[in-house]
Parts: sequence; structure tokens; C-alpha cells
Amino acid sequence: MGIPPGAGRVEQVAFGFMASKVLFSAIDFGLLTQLAKGPLDAEKLRNRLGLHPRSIRDFLDALVALGMLERHGEVYSNTEETDFYLDRAKPTYIGNIFEMFNVRDYPFWGSLSDGLRTGNPQNEIKGGEDLFTAIYANLDRLRLFLRSMTGHSLPSAMAIAQKFPWSKYRTFADIGSAEGCLPVQVALANPHLIGEGFDLPMVRPFFEEYIASFGIQDRVRFHPGDFFKDSLPGADVLVMGMILHNWNLDEKRTLLKKAYDALPDGGSLIVYEHLIDDEHRKNVAGLLMSLMMLIETQEGFDYTGADCCGWMREVGFTESYVEQLTGTVSMVVAVK
Amino acid sequence: MGIPPGAGRVEQVAFGFMASKVLFSAIDFGLLTQLAKGPLDAEKLRNRLGLHPRSIRDFLDALVALGMLERHGEVYSNTEETDFYLDRAKPTYIGNIFEMFNVRDYPFWGSLSDGLRTGNPQNEIKGGEDLFTAIYANLDRLRLFLRSMTGHSLPSAMAIAQKFPWSKYRTFADIGSAEGCLPVQVALANPHLIGEGFDLPMVRPFFEEYIASFGIQDRVRFHPGDFFKDSLPGADVLVMGMILHNWNLDEKRTLLKKAYDALPDGGSLIVYEHLIDDEHRKNVAGLLMSLMMLIETQEGFDYTGADCCGWMREVGFTESYVEQLTGTVSMVVAVK
Repeated sequence: MGIPPGAGRVEQVAFGFMASKVLFSAIDFGLLTQLAKGPLDAEKLRNRLGLHPRSIRDFLDALVALGMLERHGEVYSNTEETDFYLDRAKPTYIGNIFEMFNVRDYPFWGSLSDGLRTGNPQNEIKGGEDLFTAIYANLDRLRLFLRSMTGHSLPSAMAIAQKFPWSKYRTFADIGSAEGCLPVQVALANPHLIGEGFDLPMVRPFFEEYIASFGIQDRVRFHPGDFFKDSLPGADVLVMGMILHNWNLDEKRTLLKKAYDALPDGGSLIVYEHLIDDEHRKNVAGLLMSLMMLIETQEGFDYTGADCCGWMREVGFTESYVEQLTGTVSMVVAVK
Repeated sequence: MGIPPGAGRVEQVAFGFMASKVLFSAIDFGLLTQLAKGPLDAEKLRNRLGLHPRSIRDFLDALVALGMLERHGEVYSNTEETDFYLDRAKPTYIGNIFEMFNVRDYPFWGSLSDGLRTGNPQNEIKGGEDLFTAIYANLDRLRLFLRSMTGHSLPSAMAIAQKFPWSKYRTFADIGSAEGCLPVQVALANPHLIGEGFDLPMVRPFFEEYIASFGIQDRVRFHPGDFFKDSLPGADVLVMGMILHNWNLDEKRTLLKKAYDALPDGGSLIVYEHLIDDEHRKNVAGLLMSLMMLIETQEGFDYTGADCCGWMREVGFTESYVEQLTGTVSMVVAVK
């Protein structure tokens, strides 16, 4: 018998759910928030978090092996990445999206096979309800969702605040703003801008609290509305982040057309998503996010930069380009 | 503001559960078994598997991006690795372990945080029962478990069949043999050997069926017994694969001592596991497998090669060495 192939890639993918849960438990326990205050050994950390002795070393060392913690001698500390993104005390915390993955999506993905067989979502809208109607009907669920969207958008929002040529513009509006993650990052990095967050009316108190916590309520306001029923706000730049992927192709085109209609000549639309690479073979996160749309929405799906540029041309934009923001998220910019 | 760190490592770990479920659904649908018969385009594959059009491309292309499939033009095919290990029609199929991950462990790991807080397992033995008593009491559960152990052991068993100096020995016994994965691989590669599989009496029919399917029932027999209550079989070489990690430290030492007592002078014991690296910072699979022992057993845990060599010395072995078998599994060999 010849030498059999290694089973390493299969095993790594198959063990992925355990790795995710180890990270989610660390977030759940506030472990990274605790270590952001200073390094600790296993026993002190275990006591602070109220954990059992049995598996504490394996748990912490799994986080080390996964690159989520460092260990020097017997003392654990955050990595630069986990300290920046997973300390709840920092405004750059993005753990909320993973808290939602843990409590909502991990169990929902348990029935992925049913989703792939039927084409139907596998969350609380299995019965046919719209996801956002369901989420927005319950204040606790809405709070969890809006916060998770901040975690989902923050790395992209920070990148857009730096990479887009904001100096050419005076006003912007974020369509489907949730708490206002993007408006905050853009306004903080560009003091000459005036911005709005556009979302359903019940989002207002969450938005206003979040904006006020950064002291920029004089430059960033809430604009209530339903992006299918109402006109979009007029501004030099409109932004749609992780919005289009929730909807079917007709709805995507409708939203792009409404953005085109609302913009002045020379105005820009920024769309950002976990864009799937044009060859549909590299960006794992984009393809998995599209399957997340199967699990979570009636007809949503993710798409490539080429797809988006094509739809933008169809609704009237003459110019568009794609630019990478993070390892897995890119923006598509169109000019009217 | 300076350039923020990338969030790529955190995101990759957090998306791991989705990647696992995509692979598990592919196994569930028999997708790799279907493609082992020949490459197919998305539409033909979708029809064969009875899947819905909505997410078929994203599902298949996620498998491509994860390295589980290849796509040439519009036609999908297995990789060398997935063709060898995930085609149910081949004797080298290891998908049974992932079928068990999918139906048992994915939901059980949902309560990892409870396990880490309490030190208690999170499966059907939450109430205090022993795992193997629970599994062996139900024939369907036993069959699933025994088959999954074949998937779990096969890559290691094939490596041991080649790498261990079998030419120096005449007989071997696999302690906790399940269906007999290791005895089959060792006997096929070493026609001079006579072997036994030692396991609880109700395993016999599953073992004998599996052995007979390879036509080696004249050289490999079943030896019923309980490794805590009975003596271990006498043989030149004893093997314990993925066995010691199920038990606490006293039980581990007891099993090693019983192996020492059963071996002749010059006999060898082979232990194989997802050994944790001695520094406890590299072998993610070993550390996650140890957390699997938290989820699945009362007091089990995984360990390092140095740990195992130490316990072997304590029970009387004078010589031992560690050798890597696959990317994540190693064997410890001790000589009496």
C-alpha cells in the first residue's frame, strides 16, 4: 500500500465547532475583559471567572494554541488582537457579534442540512415571518441584535473612516445604521462631516445612547424610516453595510435604485459586505455568511464585487470600484 | 488613531462552527460518496442529493474554499484527501467520527460554558452515569459509537501498521478495540501477525462482522473482557488507542500497570492519542480533544507524551519514546 494522504484538512474543519465554542465561552466568561486589566496565572484567572479546576488549563491553553491568548511562563495575557477587539471595557469591542453567534446561530446552524434541503431559514422565522419583524418586536432581542451589528461592522467601519475620500464630501447617511457604529467611526475620524443614521423608529433610543457615549450628538442624528416604504435621506454619501445580503435580488436592486435616486450628482454610495471573491472559491467567510443568510433570512444571499458593480450599473451608477477593508470584508463604491 | 490590528484570527475561529457544519452536511448528504463515482456540475449534484436550489452554489463553493472539494470549470470533484477518507464505499472511510460529532457532540458542546463552570460532562451522563454504560446499553448507540471509533482511529492505525517494528513480534492485542480498526490495518500490512481485539462482550458481533469483511478472521479474533475487571490478554504487543484519555489519572495508571503485567519481557505497549505537545501550546486538536473528554466523560483528560512516558516509568517500563503518526496524533511506545 502506498502512503495514504493526510487527513489534516478534514480534521481541522471538523474540529472547528469546538474551537468556536472555546472562544465563545471565553467571551461569555469575560475572560478577555479580565485579562485586559493585567496578566494572570491559571489559578487566579479561574477564581476570578468562577470556573472549575478540571479543565481550566486545557481551556486556557486551547485559547493559546488558537492564537487568542499568549502565555509567558505560567501567566496568561491577551494578544494585541483580542485585547483590542474582545475587551468589553473598550469602545472597540466586537464580541457582541460572537455573543449572537453563540446564543442564536450555533443552535440554528444545527439544522443546516434541513435548510439546504428546503431552502428555508432555520431560526425563529421558520414559520414564514420576516426576520426583522421578529427581532424588532422584542426589545431584548432588538438590543442584542443592534449591539451584535456593531461588533459585526466595527473593523469595516474603522477602515472605511480612513480609506474613503471623505474630504471631498460634507454629509453622509448610514442606511440601516443599527446603533450607529459606522456613523461614529466616520464622524470621529472626519470632524468636518455631518451624518445621519437611518433605521426603523424603535432603534432611536439605542442609537442616541450609543452616539452620545462618544459625545458627537451634535454632528450625528437619527433619521427614522423604513428603507422599503420611505425615501432614503439625501446626503453626499450613502452607506449600506451588511444590509443588501439580507434581501433577494429584486429587493437588492430596489435598495440600490433608491440610493441612486436620493444621491446628488457626484454623490457616492458605499456598500460593504463579506464580499465573495469573483471566482467563488477563496473567501470562506463570504460563502459562510451567505449560508448564514439561508439560516437567518427568507431569501437573502451574499454576492461578489462583480455582482454588485453590475447591479449598480443597472440602476444608473456610471462608475464603481471594489476595495478590500479587512481580510474578509470589502467595500463597493459607486459614483452618481 | 493608528492602524488597528486585523480581526482575522478571531473571525476565523468564530466562523469555525459554520465550516464544521458545512462539512458535516456534505457527509450527511453522501456528497463525497456521490462525487467519488465521478465529477458532477452543481445542478446534477443538487438533483442527486435532493437539495434546494437556493444555496447550492454557496454550499458547494464553501466546500471548495475550505479545501474539501475541487472545482474545474463548472464541475465539482473530491480532493485526494476527501476521496480517500469521506467516500462511504471505501474501507478508508472515516466520516463516521464526524457523523458522531454532528449528531452528538455539536449539540453537547452547546453547553461548554456549563461544563467549564461545573467540571461535569454535558452529554447523556450529566446525571452521573458512566458514558460507556450508557452507550453500550443501546444497540443503535453502540453501533454509531463503534463505527465512529473506526473513523477516529483509521489514519493512526494505518500509520502504526507501517511505522512500528512489527517484524520483531508475532502476536498483538488491541485493548478497547471497538470494531477492530487497528487490528485490521496491522494484520493487513503484516501477514505474519496473529492478533486479538479486546472489548466488552456485546461488541463481539460488530467486531466479527468488520473483521470478516476484510477476510482476516483466521488471524484476528475477538477476546471479550472488561479492562478494569479482567486481566488483559497476553501478547507480544498491546495497543491502547484513544482509551486512556477517557479516564482519570488513577484509572490511567491502573490500565498501564495491567498492560505491563500482561506483557512478556521484551514486549511492547503502544499508546496513541491526540497527544498534547509537551509545551501545551501547539496541538489544538489535542487540547480540544481533552475538552471533548470534559463534555463526554466523568473525569477523563488528554495528556502529553512526557506525561505518558512518566506514567509508564512509574508502572515499571524502562524505555519509552514518542513518534508522530498524523498531523495531530502520536504514539507512545514502551518496552518491558
